[in-house]
Amino acid sequence: MQDDNTVFVGNKPVMNYVLAVVTQFNNGAEEVTVKARGKAISRAVDTTEIALNRFLLDVEKKSIFTSTEEVDTESGKTHVSSIEITLISRK
Amino acid sequence: MQDDNTVFVGNKPVMNYVLAVVTQFNNGAEEVTVKARGKAISRAVDTTEIALNRFLLDVEKKSIFTSTEEVDTESGKTHVSSIEITLISRK
Repeated sequence: MQDDNTVFVGNKPVMNYVLAVVTQFNNGAEEVTVKARGKAISRAVDTTEIALNRFLLDVEKKSIFTSTEEVDTESGKTHVSSIEITLISRK
Repeated sequence: MQDDNTVFVGNKPVMNYVLAVVTQFNNGAEEVTVKARGKAISRAVDTTEIALNRFLLDVEKKSIFTSTEEVDTESGKTHVSSIEITLISRK
């Protein structure tokens, strides 16, 4: 079991990511971090809300951080917002 | 001056909301809360990142909360994720 279980949220349907989070906790993870950048940030929040409200009633939010990352694009460097939501088991 | 300065982020260009946040601090606010629901959550994070990195160098994040709200739609009640980012002046 890895200590740093991380789910990267992208453009797939939100339930894909919910399932990934639920599976990690069911496999014994004590903490899972959900990360996203740009427009996927909203989906990351949806992922954690759905996972906690519907599936993981003994898991809670430990921390939420937002930051700015620099990314390289064809037209040079740009900045993109990111979010990290860490969930922790109360068991 | 109100104690509960709040900026609701919606579908307008992000710089509109950045300007609203910067204006509230320039008018003497000690705290400003940025709120958004659904897909606007990403824009709320962009708003605070841009405001803090480019304009408000003496302001920091105080807290970030996410939650689920129930909203009425034509086809009944549904749930939507929301975010509240509170910024505080270090002055």
